[in-house]
Amino acid sequence: MPETLLSYQCPVVAEWVDFNGHLRDAYYMVLFSHGVDGLMDQIGLDAAGRQATGHSLFTLEAHINFLHEVKLGAQAQVYCQLLAHDAKRMHLGLGLYLQGDDRLMAYSEQMLLNVDMAGPRACAFAPTVMAKVQMLATAHRSLARPQYVGRVIALPPAKTP
Amino acid sequence: MPETLLSYQCPVVAEWVDFNGHLRDAYYMVLFSHGVDGLMDQIGLDAAGRQATGHSLFTLEAHINFLHEVKLGAQAQVYCQLLAHDAKRMHLGLGLYLQGDDRLMAYSEQMLLNVDMAGPRACAFAPTVMAKVQMLATAHRSLARPQYVGRVIALPPAKTP
Repeated sequence: MPETLLSYQCPVVAEWVDFNGHLRDAYYMVLFSHGVDGLMDQIGLDAAGRQATGHSLFTLEAHINFLHEVKLGAQAQVYCQLLAHDAKRMHLGLGLYLQGDDRLMAYSEQMLLNVDMAGPRACAFAPTVMAKVQMLATAHRSLARPQYVGRVIALPPAKTP
Repeated sequence: MPETLLSYQCPVVAEWVDFNGHLRDAYYMVLFSHGVDGLMDQIGLDAAGRQATGHSLFTLEAHINFLHEVKLGAQAQVYCQLLAHDAKRMHLGLGLYLQGDDRLMAYSEQMLLNVDMAGPRACAFAPTVMAKVQMLATAHRSLARPQYVGRVIALPPAKTP
């Protein structure tokens, strides 16, 4: 995802590895979650921005495709694409890559809601934040829509004999 | 989800709480992940069963709906429903509840694949495991299909003036 935004990187640590000897499914989402934090830092919702606006983001929904095993010590990198947005929501696509490996290891599609923490209640992005969301939308407008967006989970059709 | 299987319970601990003062999105999935481990224990894929069969389960896909905030110290309970299966896959629905609270806090729909760890490669469930999966399918056959199954993530349609 070279055109998308590198929003988080860190090594895979031992406490994230499960009895299968690879990154436990939920810790892929820990990486994606920190990827969203990295995006928040870049659109004015870092700690100072949250303090100034009284707003933060809540995750409404996430859909992860696990594509390859990730092993201890790998250098994880999360890239973020803004797929769509409205006055108070961002629809994000997050890709997990490993340093030195071109393969997409996992993909997470997420819906994020802007929240006034005084409620908490949903509210429109602050103008300063919306300006940055719109800049990101412009930058990502021409990027391809990954195949893992918009999927429904289901068993594959049974083979006919 | 009283008819479904209680497959994990634990308190929400401080390291799972984020800057919003509630359970970080990814740690809902940590709870669901341990809920799947609890199910594995009950279908003969506990540590001894994995050793005996050489098999384990890999998560292919997960779709989580975050419905309510969960706070520090809450007693989390994960209930598991077998929605469908074939020779090597289980389609699970996992509901997160809190002790003393009737509300569904989050729901995760997941597709799990049986894997021969000698590859690793996909393979049919061992007969002893399949027998237990089929017992679970029979027990869960008449349960309602939760509204969070089969969703696609998308922005709501814009309101017309």
